[in-house]
Amino acid sequence: MQQVNLGIIGGGTVGGGVFQAVQRNGALMASRLGVCLRVAGMAVRDVHKKRAVRIPPALLTTNWLGVVRDPQVHLVVELMGGTTTARTVALTALRLGKPVVTANKALLSAHGEELFAAAQQYGANLYYEASVAGGIPIIKVLREGLIGNRITRIYGILNGTCNYILTRMKFEGADFAEVLADAQRLGYAEAEPSLDVDGHDALHKIGILASLAHGFWVNPKQIHVEGIGSITSLDIKFAGQLGYTIKQLSIVKPLERAANRGPAMDGSRVQVTVYPTLVPNDHVLASVNHVFNAVLVRGDIVGDTLYYGRGAGQDATASAVLSDLADAALDLKCGTKSRIPPFVPHERAGAVVPIGEVVSRYYLRLDVVDRPGTLARIAAILGRARIGISSVIQPEGHEGDSVPLILMIHDANHAAMGRALARINRLAVVKSPAVMIRVENFE
Amino acid sequence: MQQVNLGIIGGGTVGGGVFQAVQRNGALMASRLGVCLRVAGMAVRDVHKKRAVRIPPALLTTNWLGVVRDPQVHLVVELMGGTTTARTVALTALRLGKPVVTANKALLSAHGEELFAAAQQYGANLYYEASVAGGIPIIKVLREGLIGNRITRIYGILNGTCNYILTRMKFEGADFAEVLADAQRLGYAEAEPSLDVDGHDALHKIGILASLAHGFWVNPKQIHVEGIGSITSLDIKFAGQLGYTIKQLSIVKPLERAANRGPAMDGSRVQVTVYPTLVPNDHVLASVNHVFNAVLVRGDIVGDTLYYGRGAGQDATASAVLSDLADAALDLKCGTKSRIPPFVPHERAGAVVPIGEVVSRYYLRLDVVDRPGTLARIAAILGRARIGISSVIQPEGHEGDSVPLILMIHDANHAAMGRALARINRLAVVKSPAVMIRVENFE
Repeated sequence: MQQVNLGIIGGGTVGGGVFQAVQRNGALMASRLGVCLRVAGMAVRDVHKKRAVRIPPALLTTNWLGVVRDPQVHLVVELMGGTTTARTVALTALRLGKPVVTANKALLSAHGEELFAAAQQYGANLYYEASVAGGIPIIKVLREGLIGNRITRIYGILNGTCNYILTRMKFEGADFAEVLADAQRLGYAEAEPSLDVDGHDALHKIGILASLAHGFWVNPKQIHVEGIGSITSLDIKFAGQLGYTIKQLSIVKPLERAANRGPAMDGSRVQVTVYPTLVPNDHVLASVNHVFNAVLVRGDIVGDTLYYGRGAGQDATASAVLSDLADAALDLKCGTKSRIPPFVPHERAGAVVPIGEVVSRYYLRLDVVDRPGTLARIAAILGRARIGISSVIQPEGHEGDSVPLILMIHDANHAAMGRALARINRLAVVKSPAVMIRVENFE
Repeated sequence: MQQVNLGIIGGGTVGGGVFQAVQRNGALMASRLGVCLRVAGMAVRDVHKKRAVRIPPALLTTNWLGVVRDPQVHLVVELMGGTTTARTVALTALRLGKPVVTANKALLSAHGEELFAAAQQYGANLYYEASVAGGIPIIKVLREGLIGNRITRIYGILNGTCNYILTRMKFEGADFAEVLADAQRLGYAEAEPSLDVDGHDALHKIGILASLAHGFWVNPKQIHVEGIGSITSLDIKFAGQLGYTIKQLSIVKPLERAANRGPAMDGSRVQVTVYPTLVPNDHVLASVNHVFNAVLVRGDIVGDTLYYGRGAGQDATASAVLSDLADAALDLKCGTKSRIPPFVPHERAGAVVPIGEVVSRYYLRLDVVDRPGTLARIAAILGRARIGISSVIQPEGHEGDSVPLILMIHDANHAAMGRALARINRLAVVKSPAVMIRVENFE
């Protein structure tokens, strides 16, 4: 049986997980693939470090270049993380004509186009299933399973840490800081949690999915992102009373052109955003709890489909890496170096819609003086901005100088909403800045 | 750009849908694939029939053999249904070395092994994504996305008609016959509904998934199947009170060997069944409603993953066929005739566990005389059979000679349960045969 030798770069959690998974299920994969995978070398930072996964010392080295250049190594597996050395590793391998498997979403987000160009130039492929949504084979689904579809919507719960925190806040009525501290203690959140809770991890992922769906490479700097740090247990409670669950949602949605401007040019101008969102409780995404990820993909032919699983962690990531190893091994076996290229720019004219033009519904929570005329003044500001109110809720049972006032707002664009909110926040009857959370009805 | 000419056999709902989808998104697919798909001919039963999808008359013929043999046709798409002519169509194409795409689960179920052997013998591939769960790319997920995993569980809601009927029975408290009649009027159920409601459609599908997961071809005759025709609104109501939703569930589960018999031989003896099941309301499968399908796949590395979408209908099926057309086109472009063979028998010693040995939990509904000692007599029969009762519920508010008695039963095998039920049904205090529905806790 043909043997494919792997050079693994990175011996941390993911590297150890992949090594372990290859040992565990390598024979099964060989029987399914007709190709045998063997780890030929593994570059790590410290060969003497104690590891949770035992790796034969003879495989370990600190010399990644030696592993990449080793003529015995057919396939380079970049699992070190970061965007500096990892970029050099990937480029070096591609220049040697060796295919690269990576789990590194930050690397793709920052240097995707350069890596894709190198893959094309040197005739070696780049595989990155593990970079988005861990064990969910969402890259394969988008590129192959739904290839016959124009993708009209993607809604992703792509960060397990955020989803874990929001789930516990909902079920326990706890506050953000409290749950975050607990999540850190349990290992579900990093000591430095900003990459997750500020939405930047999800940003990398949704950028990759948006790029694959719409055929132009999305510049991560153009993705509008808001974190979950400002979500309070009060808003989760009020949302619940209104029949909604708050989720950190990554959204890809082509802008609909006005009816009188002719047919929509699908894919040409696309919303790509990450922000907390009220999701109706009867929608399947509202039931995705704890550290689980899910991606809803709507295709113009297939309709709504949904993919659910663990989005991070050693094993979920290893499962996705193994899937790429299988594809790479088959490509090596069959001599098809770029059967499915890492990225096909089929919509070069595409662009990300600036956040100001993004339209959505909103939940607004105001802290107002309980006095006749208050609502009229707020409604007047919204009315002048042509922003429609779909309902007004004054929750009962509040005491003190001010009372909460919840407004549910019809479709409005971000810029108009921002201007109206600035005016509302200046009203004397409004005691603290309005809380604004978007509402998604999945139309 | 390279062009792949399709010969479509069958001009019904699915054939029309595929033709329409190729017209609609063919250019998009070409830009993604680098291969252009063109329908070169289409064999139908009646060229003059009025069709919902307009097909140029020049493409139509009643001569399927002419289409299959046409040297211009590179790829044969079998969408006619049935297992007789469809088998001849597929075998004829494969013998000519032409790859075949099919959406025909009954054909695969009945003649899969013969077709796989022909594909291997003549060096032409066979693709069948559309045969299971419509628009959900579950075949690709199992064979490629999760290839690094030993599959330890599959739970599928694989028949949209059953799920639609059970969903409406639950939400409306309606009876089976009533909802079925309505579903027939709305086109969600066939005039002859037995293939769906008796579970045989799901049987074909779960047999294919079980075969792919466990590496031996499952004989459909060995799959135990029970339909939903005996599910009453009363049982749906009681299940709801206990925190469960009744779903028609297809299950693939390797038998666990007793601890003292050594390590489990994964995959060697596998439960493959289709029957109505009580699913806990907080499990994600309980929320899969109406005509939607979903498949939960548990891998030993990835853990639980779930795939959700429309399982049938013109467009969902067309989406899956397009995915196969893309794979087939890439294989033709790259000259890789059997990159992923239609079936790899990697576990030749595998076998389906006879239903008698299948272990599960049960919901039992008895109709008993409300008299002291009744429960004791029933409990004694179960006790002698070493079947444990986990709870007993006597729903309130019933009048008349007899009252319902619900028993929730611990793990027991089907054979033991059947013997105990026969004894219970013979008791004078039991007024009508016990209703037995399995309970799944997804362990």
